[in-house]
Amino acid sequence: MSRKVVTACLIIIGNEILSGRTQDVNLQHLAVELNELGVRLREARVIPDIEQTIVDTVNECREAFDHVFTTGGIGPTHDDITAASIAKAFNTELMIHPEIEVRIRARVAPPEVMESRMLMARVPVGSTLVDNPTGGPQGFQMGNVFVMAGVPIVMQAMVSSLTKERLGGGDPVRSRSVGCYLGESQVAVGLSAIQDDHPDVDVGSYPFYRKDGYGTNLVIRGTDETELEAIVEDIRALIVAEGGEPLDPIS
Amino acid sequence: MSRKVVTACLIIIGNEILSGRTQDVNLQHLAVELNELGVRLREARVIPDIEQTIVDTVNECREAFDHVFTTGGIGPTHDDITAASIAKAFNTELMIHPEIEVRIRARVAPPEVMESRMLMARVPVGSTLVDNPTGGPQGFQMGNVFVMAGVPIVMQAMVSSLTKERLGGGDPVRSRSVGCYLGESQVAVGLSAIQDDHPDVDVGSYPFYRKDGYGTNLVIRGTDETELEAIVEDIRALIVAEGGEPLDPIS
Repeated sequence: MSRKVVTACLIIIGNEILSGRTQDVNLQHLAVELNELGVRLREARVIPDIEQTIVDTVNECREAFDHVFTTGGIGPTHDDITAASIAKAFNTELMIHPEIEVRIRARVAPPEVMESRMLMARVPVGSTLVDNPTGGPQGFQMGNVFVMAGVPIVMQAMVSSLTKERLGGGDPVRSRSVGCYLGESQVAVGLSAIQDDHPDVDVGSYPFYRKDGYGTNLVIRGTDETELEAIVEDIRALIVAEGGEPLDPIS
Repeated sequence: MSRKVVTACLIIIGNEILSGRTQDVNLQHLAVELNELGVRLREARVIPDIEQTIVDTVNECREAFDHVFTTGGIGPTHDDITAASIAKAFNTELMIHPEIEVRIRARVAPPEVMESRMLMARVPVGSTLVDNPTGGPQGFQMGNVFVMAGVPIVMQAMVSSLTKERLGGGDPVRSRSVGCYLGESQVAVGLSAIQDDHPDVDVGSYPFYRKDGYGTNLVIRGTDETELEAIVEDIRALIVAEGGEPLDPIS
């Protein structure tokens, strides 16, 4: 049962997230997809478009986790410095990737525009490609670092091209949720006992506040579906014992 | 003009964000509020409910930034370990804060439930309070670390109690945006020149894809409104020169 857990970290590169201009949605998308691929997202960082910050963060995270994913900064403008920063982190040079170049040159453009677009063909020497099913320029993998676009529809297309084999993922991570109109404090002691009985399962409680009252959603996550179903029954019994009614999760 | 910039880092503590169950919205809210308070959000991290991870992350970030904000993990259940972790990071003990206790005891509850709720009265020795205008238990400030709830309506109430004086913030950060139906590559060269001319202003370009076409939003951020207005005119002229039409930002 002591199967190795495959871990991942997401690095979101973009001033627009830190300024509040843009609401990130890539973290949640990647997290959900990695559950299916049997990889655990263990950390995420949001950092600005500053080369040394990107280099240091990538180098720290690629040592600490099995896989690192980055989003953002691979477009054609002055603030798109991710590819150059990754090359620097790996102490290598940039090269024009011929397969990306083919895609870029397939669309006609004036020379100055093509020159800017060709910046998107640069990858660190030693990279392999991450496909981009939208038909646009591909992302790339350098070592254990997967470099993807920041625009959600493009990022999601790139994620869809990743496979369990490529990531060496384990069993999919599944979850079950039970809602109730009880305060967190009312289930705290019982929930702690359930967590102690099931160290391989992640047991969480999440309070909510709605016009019709407040309550708690109880969420369990793990890879053994039989164990999850047994815990659901324990949680339902706990809620009834505290005078509540077990419900579908309340959003 | 070399006024000190006040920096901040947000640490989001919560397995529910990393599992993909919950979409974080606290980062964007804090970022927007800090703009008004004259504080720059420079980094954010999402980490799991693991004590040593919280301790290490808090200690790294409180050295690197003027302020650290945390969200999550201050409820009454077994996975709410933020207060204890902050105390450990500062090498101090937990105490019951009398003002938080008053709020908690104001609501009647059975002894076992009250015992769990009283966990929310614990703060590291030396803390001051962060008010909670919802009337629930307060957050706390330990050194330069501000510890807040993870539930968005509670987090937002706590943020609303922060003042520019408490944070030592500078001039508010303002932004201007111009949209156009030009590709990023078409404005890349001109935009880079504008950025070079205005090193104190953050010039960003953000591509979008819509049913009616694709284009780019150009965003500038800085504290000098006169400078921002001048740059807006340069950007509008750039768009016209490239054959486009300057528009309101396109979402």
